[in-house]
Amino acid sequence: MTPSTSNPEESRLERGRKALAAIDGQAGDKVVAALADIAPDFARYILEFPFGDIYSRPGLDLRAREIATIAALTAMGNATPQLKVHIEAGLNVGITRDEIIETMMQMAVYAGFPAALNALFAAKDVFADLDSATG
Amino acid sequence: MTPSTSNPEESRLERGRKALAAIDGQAGDKVVAALADIAPDFARYILEFPFGDIYSRPGLDLRAREIATIAALTAMGNATPQLKVHIEAGLNVGITRDEIIETMMQMAVYAGFPAALNALFAAKDVFADLDSATG
Amino acid sequence: MTPSTSNPEESRLERGRKALAAIDGQAGDKVVAALADIAPDFARYILEFPFGDIYSRPGLDLRAREIATIAALTAMGNATPQLKVHIEAGLNVGITRDEIIETMMQMAVYAGFPAALNALFAAKDVFADLDSATG
Amino acid sequence: MTPSTSNPEESRLERGRKALAAIDGQAGDKVVAALADIAPDFARYILEFPFGDIYSRPGLDLRAREIATIAALTAMGNATPQLKVHIEAGLNVGITRDEIIETMMQMAVYAGFPAALNALFAAKDVFADLDSATG
Amino acid sequence: MTPSTSNPEESRLERGRKALAAIDGQAGDKVVAALADIAPDFARYILEFPFGDIYSRPGLDLRAREIATIAALTAMGNATPQLKVHIEAGLNVGITRDEIIETMMQMAVYAGFPAALNALFAAKDVFADLDSATG
Amino acid sequence: MTPSTSNPEESRLERGRKALAAIDGQAGDKVVAALADIAPDFARYILEFPFGDIYSRPGLDLRAREIATIAALTAMGNATPQLKVHIEAGLNVGITRDEIIETMMQMAVYAGFPAALNALFAAKDVFADLDSATG
Repeated sequence: MTPSTSNPEESRLERGRKALAAIDGQAGDKVVAALADIAPDFARYILEFPFGDIYSRPGLDLRAREIATIAALTAMGNATPQLKVHIEAGLNVGITRDEIIETMMQMAVYAGFPAALNALFAAKDVFADLDSATG
Repeated sequence: MTPSTSNPEESRLERGRKALAAIDGQAGDKVVAALADIAPDFARYILEFPFGDIYSRPGLDLRAREIATIAALTAMGNATPQLKVHIEAGLNVGITRDEIIETMMQMAVYAGFPAALNALFAAKDVFADLDSATG
Repeated sequence: MTPSTSNPEESRLERGRKALAAIDGQAGDKVVAALADIAPDFARYILEFPFGDIYSRPGLDLRAREIATIAALTAMGNATPQLKVHIEAGLNVGITRDEIIETMMQMAVYAGFPAALNALFAAKDVFADLDSATG
Repeated sequence: MTPSTSNPEESRLERGRKALAAIDGQAGDKVVAALADIAPDFARYILEFPFGDIYSRPGLDLRAREIATIAALTAMGNATPQLKVHIEAGLNVGITRDEIIETMMQMAVYAGFPAALNALFAAKDVFADLDSATG
Repeated sequence: MTPSTSNPEESRLERGRKALAAIDGQAGDKVVAALADIAPDFARYILEFPFGDIYSRPGLDLRAREIATIAALTAMGNATPQLKVHIEAGLNVGITRDEIIETMMQMAVYAGFPAALNALFAAKDVFADLDSATG
Repeated sequence: MTPSTSNPEESRLERGRKALAAIDGQAGDKVVAALADIAPDFARYILEFPFGDIYSRPGLDLRAREIATIAALTAMGNATPQLKVHIEAGLNVGITRDEIIETMMQMAVYAGFPAALNALFAAKDVFADLDSATG
């Protein structure tokens, strides 16, 4: 995951692509594709900064990173599409459904019951979609 | 950490007191003391619900719980006193300084650079206080 | 509304159930039911802390409590489902439609016109549903 | 409180001045004075819209209006100076200290414990200032 | 755009109507119409304060005002209907689609990637509606 | 402002340094310096992404970019240190004091009067510091 010294800019993008695929799976691809006609540079920035720079850093494991993201998006309460992507991402990196629920419930303490409740219903939707897809 | 069946209400408060002491240490005591003359019932609720109910649940380890809280308070950006308490709480439950910094940096992705920056400066303050106290 | 001394934990839950039924009516039951398969403990916490502890306190009448909640949810602007529940709750405890509208309009001062506007449209929806149900 | 038909614009400003004086007392004057050299038109807008238009409306009593404002500013958590002004305003229009505390405690449910806690400490400051002034 | 001195209150409303028509076009009319049965006074306030007072001020051109509004609504992230109105308003006052996209992308820095992303998708919707209307 | 093809990663950082110096002046340097001992990588990210990537893009002039940032930080209301930096940055790129005041006043419409008011007082502080420094 170290960029090659000869072509660092491309490596950063490439590193981001790999991190996005590992973490968000197909949901990440969909976001990038949806930006293609309106803001393709923003798709590149998403790959480069959040995924190429931040999620690729060695100082915190992906499990902790996804718990942090699920907690923050639950607390902020105004980014449901991204919360749903990271519920799946959390499952992808080994967090259990119950741990996601615990993280969201805890947010009632810091951001209020409505924020926690709306996140729990988003999780319910994601889990139901996953169950029907694999059903 | 299971409440006794004969006196559940007291046990919930008692469980919260123990959890608060284990997690927040003296900082938690100060908050409870500061509420004594203005809203003593609210001090009790803090012990009972966040600590007696939520942090005492077995489904998520305290390390993950504190990363979630630090992430959320960083992202929300309007609760610096509580963020500082949980920076110390994170250290108390075994999160390293570097992991706290990583969690805050990641929040630039979800809540913007100012939120991350202000949290990093709060961490700098807390770390400096701890170093001077033990210096 | 005082919990029995012999079984305080059950009483707190029971007190919350009664408060929820009195305030939110069927809307509260639906939320509790929707949590049953994903986070049943969170349904219990909703009954116990907001309703069993807070709304059951004698220091503020339910009319003032619902105005406070409608104001806050209008200002926060990211909890429309809960705002709709509390528009109905406000009517249940004797606040008039016009007073709900006044409360929301006032929030333009503190949280901006979009927050007030989106709350007014939520109220319009709730009032229309009530009118068609009783039509 | 009805504007004269011959000079409605002046009356709106005048109505706002009277409402501000009745509600905020000297704290409102200080805000208007502090804007004099940087944004005097904004001082006029504050008198005209929030106070001349909104608070002067007959559909909701001032007691309910101040509970709504205290609730919203507590929940938003990023307007401590204005919250302090409205804690005093609440007392001015007949809300008791205990009712202000109850309103803030209730906000823990909707906006989290840190928001409620920071508002309670703002109230503690205001009450202490009032007590020392009248001491 | 200066109100007549003989009837300033009516002029303020009239000035707001003209500003709303020039800036928001039909979208503004729809909001006013939707408020007619629930909060007609609020429709008047929208015309008077934001449009009659603020947008009619000479100190900042409408292009800069709409960039400011698009930036703020993107960053706040909880007012999508109003953001869509102001995407169209921005185009009405001469901002290009690319400049709107640039403004939104920049908000990733201050309010995080989800806020920017959700605004970009709102812009995508508005642009598609405009293209299909003129197709 | 185009990165050299032979060493794009360094160029991005270098481009960010130049943009930061041009826009934020000494205030930007202070932020970078303050991060040196706690999160030096975050200082680099600030140079690279906001300044090297975003502010260096040709699609929107710096004047519009700073109005967007001042508007957003005013509306968000929880990033006063960064707002102050961008008040100075706005002046650096040619926005007048009156235009900054206009932008902030407009935010009363979208984020409420307290957010606008607190930003105006931040501007008053910055202007006074500048006047005393050049006095």
